Amino acid sequence: MGGDHGPPVVVPASLQVLKKYPCLHLVLVGDHDVLQKALQNQAYDASRLIIQHASQQVQMDESPSHALRSKKDSSMRVAINLVKSGHAEACVSAGNTGALMATARFVLKTLPGIDRPAIVSTFPTISRKNVRILDLGANVDSTAEHLFQFAIMGSVLASAVDNIQTPTVRLLNIGHEDIKGNELVKQAAQLLGHTKAINYAGYVEGDQIYEGDTDVVVCDGFVGNVTLKVSEGVIIFIRNLLKEAYSRSWWTKLVALVSMPILKSLKRVDPDRYNGACFIGLPGIVIKSHGGAKMRAFAHAIEEAIVQVEKNIPQRISVEVEQLLKLSSSETGQIKP
Amino acid sequence: MGGDHGPPVVVPASLQVLKKYPCLHLVLVGDHDVLQKALQNQAYDASRLIIQHASQQVQMDESPSHALRSKKDSSMRVAINLVKSGHAEACVSAGNTGALMATARFVLKTLPGIDRPAIVSTFPTISRKNVRILDLGANVDSTAEHLFQFAIMGSVLASAVDNIQTPTVRLLNIGHEDIKGNELVKQAAQLLGHTKAINYAGYVEGDQIYEGDTDVVVCDGFVGNVTLKVSEGVIIFIRNLLKEAYSRSWWTKLVALVSMPILKSLKRVDPDRYNGACFIGLPGIVIKSHGGAKMRAFAHAIEEAIVQVEKNIPQRISVEVEQLLKLSSSETGQIKP
Repeated sequence: MGGDHGPPVVVPASLQVLKKYPCLHLVLVGDHDVLQKALQNQAYDASRLIIQHASQQVQMDESPSHALRSKKDSSMRVAINLVKSGHAEACVSAGNTGALMATARFVLKTLPGIDRPAIVSTFPTISRKNVRILDLGANVDSTAEHLFQFAIMGSVLASAVDNIQTPTVRLLNIGHEDIKGNELVKQAAQLLGHTKAINYAGYVEGDQIYEGDTDVVVCDGFVGNVTLKVSEGVIIFIRNLLKEAYSRSWWTKLVALVSMPILKSLKRVDPDRYNGACFIGLPGIVIKSHGGAKMRAFAHAIEEAIVQVEKNIPQRISVEVEQLLKLSSSETGQIKP
Repeated sequence: MGGDHGPPVVVPASLQVLKKYPCLHLVLVGDHDVLQKALQNQAYDASRLIIQHASQQVQMDESPSHALRSKKDSSMRVAINLVKSGHAEACVSAGNTGALMATARFVLKTLPGIDRPAIVSTFPTISRKNVRILDLGANVDSTAEHLFQFAIMGSVLASAVDNIQTPTVRLLNIGHEDIKGNELVKQAAQLLGHTKAINYAGYVEGDQIYEGDTDVVVCDGFVGNVTLKVSEGVIIFIRNLLKEAYSRSWWTKLVALVSMPILKSLKRVDPDRYNGACFIGLPGIVIKSHGGAKMRAFAHAIEEAIVQVEKNIPQRISVEVEQLLKLSSSETGQIKP
């Protein structure tokens, strides 16, 4: 029910992915009548798609605490309950990020050793090696310890999914030198500099993220969210400039026609292809789609969930985090340097 | 002497701008022998270019406090002294940003009512109306009051330079809703929401910066610096993708040839064309060039200084800030909401 578009995007995207993956079963969670109506006159395998009614929905501007307290039958709450009870293996939502995170944390709890789950997504780079950035917006007032845990989780994720033995982890900063940065980053660098659990390689600046020398970039959720959205903004800007330039006259339109196959390489930076961020640090799979996602982008978020299920990500992270937990002597039971 | 390249970039850039502006006088500040050597065999109007020797230079990784304390004859210190004494109307440097800011603040002091100077620069947008973003890295642990002052200065700058009557000022945040954001942004929004001094229009998200609906975007220096550099990183990435795609075969090279005049429209997002950020909140003009700037980009930073001198920016900001200061009843003599 969430996102800027709701069922008119979520339902057709679901049907598309259902068609593509013959083993996939989907549960559409939300207002039964609305969903039923959206499914009318659509051809699909009814044995693999069911509707689970939820009488409430969390508004995009609702506070997470309010959603938790008074929306116990919201579509996102019911969907996450299905993950908790084992009736679903993953939950995908385009709804209110804060409420989704709070609900997921409340219902699923965090993995042992993890204070705060983070939002992580992959980005393309020049070197063709994807980079993972976290946190992308779950924690907007992080502490150095949180950044430390994000670094651990990001490293485990990169090694679990991409089979990178010792992923390179860097902290996002505004310079390379030790003196650069705010207090948060300097403290996190101190913590990370002392751990042997991961391959911490120092600072990375904003322009270097896309060079592809780093497997995991760690930052506070506010900074990560700005990084994500600014990147999208620049891509849309350039796409706009190209469109304008190529539609100026019959000649430019002709050039556009022959250029089209070449310009296809720009698809590598198409944000839709990277839609579907993962909530990491939970014992279940929760995928957050961009609120403004259109059909193709939302379909990609569902596919991201499928990958996470197939690769058994939470379990693998849990095991590796547990090992790190044993390594790091800690009285609190949290991962600490 | 500063930046990644030093005199080999600064000297030829200076000569280029000197040629373009017949009324311009330049003082090259730094090691006399090094600069003399860089000028050898170059044709230029010697009556408009002099060398001012400075025996020291601030390293790129030197702490601002160390530079202030023990580099009293550094090139940047001597250059800013020339502005202070009135022998120069502006200082342009590609050196250590933190040290340049600390030195400028120490030597020139801040304008009455301003706690902290900020770094501001203009960015192109889809709507062709430039947007100013501040702070871009002078203050990496800002308070809400600092953001409030940045908003005031940015608004005054936009109205002074672009003759916009009531510039639209927005706070960079990770969502539009009141509940979104970190504590800093929420507090700053409170302060700005209560002032009538400027046209505060709420939050702007990272992807909307480049839409061009906002004249001034205000953020903490850490976030602003990441915004600036991530933007550059994406532009370089896309430039790289295009270069690669167009050089794949004889056919793509041919298409590249006819596409070239069309692709020139991408120059609008060329970071070199926007090099030269302004230190705002000081009674003198100090322009910071990107450390990695090549000749054309550094020349643009010098031209930015010329614009600031011609438009008499610090004086205009000082007058407007003084008026705001009178408006806002304040015991501390600072601009407060």
